[in-house]
Amino acid sequence: MEIDYSNIKVVGFDADDTLWVNETYFRDAELEFAKMLSSFETINKIDQELFKMEMKNLSVYGYGVKGFVLSMVEMAIELSNGAVSNQVISKILNIGKNMINKPVELLEGVEEVLEALSKQYRLIVVTKGDLLDQERKLEKSGLLDYFHHIEVLSDKHENNYQRLLKHLDIAPTEFLMVGNSLKSDVLPLINIKAKAIHVPFHTTWAHEQVSDADKNGKHYQTIHKLTDLLSLLN
Amino acid sequence: MEIDYSNIKVVGFDADDTLWVNETYFRDAELEFAKMLSSFETINKIDQELFKMEMKNLSVYGYGVKGFVLSMVEMAIELSNGAVSNQVISKILNIGKNMINKPVELLEGVEEVLEALSKQYRLIVVTKGDLLDQERKLEKSGLLDYFHHIEVLSDKHENNYQRLLKHLDIAPTEFLMVGNSLKSDVLPLINIKAKAIHVPFHTTWAHEQVSDADKNGKHYQTIHKLTDLLSLLN
Repeated sequence: MEIDYSNIKVVGFDADDTLWVNETYFRDAELEFAKMLSSFETINKIDQELFKMEMKNLSVYGYGVKGFVLSMVEMAIELSNGAVSNQVISKILNIGKNMINKPVELLEGVEEVLEALSKQYRLIVVTKGDLLDQERKLEKSGLLDYFHHIEVLSDKHENNYQRLLKHLDIAPTEFLMVGNSLKSDVLPLINIKAKAIHVPFHTTWAHEQVSDADKNGKHYQTIHKLTDLLSLLN
Repeated sequence: MEIDYSNIKVVGFDADDTLWVNETYFRDAELEFAKMLSSFETINKIDQELFKMEMKNLSVYGYGVKGFVLSMVEMAIELSNGAVSNQVISKILNIGKNMINKPVELLEGVEEVLEALSKQYRLIVVTKGDLLDQERKLEKSGLLDYFHHIEVLSDKHENNYQRLLKHLDIAPTEFLMVGNSLKSDVLPLINIKAKAIHVPFHTTWAHEQVSDADKNGKHYQTIHKLTDLLSLLN
């Protein structure tokens, strides 16, 4: 069954791992963290425990690097039974600062796609995470001019998207979301009768994984490079 | 000289220390922090050093509790020359979590004012800080229904407000900002020809202090309780 995109007025792009690399830096940070604490536990176990800690703290800290760093500090103290050195904690703080200050690495074809689509559609960035961090990345990316504005959501659930559509003053069928996370960028949109296109990134955070049952009967297209958008939307 | 508010279409309210108590909790946290480290330095000195650390980290972490906690951890390690215990660091993390989870304490007259003004104006919340934190406070506050939406800005400079007005699609003279910070809620608005009303809170963060020179020639009114808005705007 063909999907008809002819009603679309606004295209929302997820940012992290859709426009630029992000998850890779978190994976690198986790590995660095686990190595620093490897005298207390196996790397694998540390990785699992850190994920649990992040999930435990998610409702308090939300998404983004700062919450991730706070969870690493808490985990280091817990894993080491209060024996971790101040030096290691300082290193953890620096991992976070380095993540925040990293240059932005655009994914393939991003600029070409945005340039072409911005002539036909209103483009916005729709991201979760830290507002300052995301604004800064957008600025560093050189992509600012292609976008009407940036919407940072505290989470990407159906109600967050519904509020967004109300705010944009458009019908669900006039909105297309493009992103790498089925859980955050695709399924909630299909559930509220908007449209979504999935562009997988090679790495997916465990928290963003979805089961096959969640995908059942959901009507969306998957593309394997962002430039495939051009033939679908032009 | 009278100020004419008859053009106003949208009224923006700052949140922290305008609608609800906030700064007080930061002051309490700073004192608790300083007491925990009082074996290394005087309380006064710790307070000054923590403020410097926050300023040093502001461009990286931005506003909000999480950056504040990360600065406290960094400061504790630095002040103690790497001798602070894991137990103290855990306590610092808990100070942060408790701040985030605090119930919302509304300031006097807030509900009465919002109820009256929401009948005549489109009301929005305009705040800086952490998006999740601010959304959560708004939800806990019970004030959600009075507001069209919440705008969380990464900072409150003239360009942030200019973008906001563009986004709201109104002229500067149609926007009135109400808030407790001269630096963030009043002066930048006057500079872009919008309107602003100052409602001081008893405590002002050092970072928000302004000099008399900055205030010179700026045309705005100061009220001493929020309910004074009703006679100005009705």
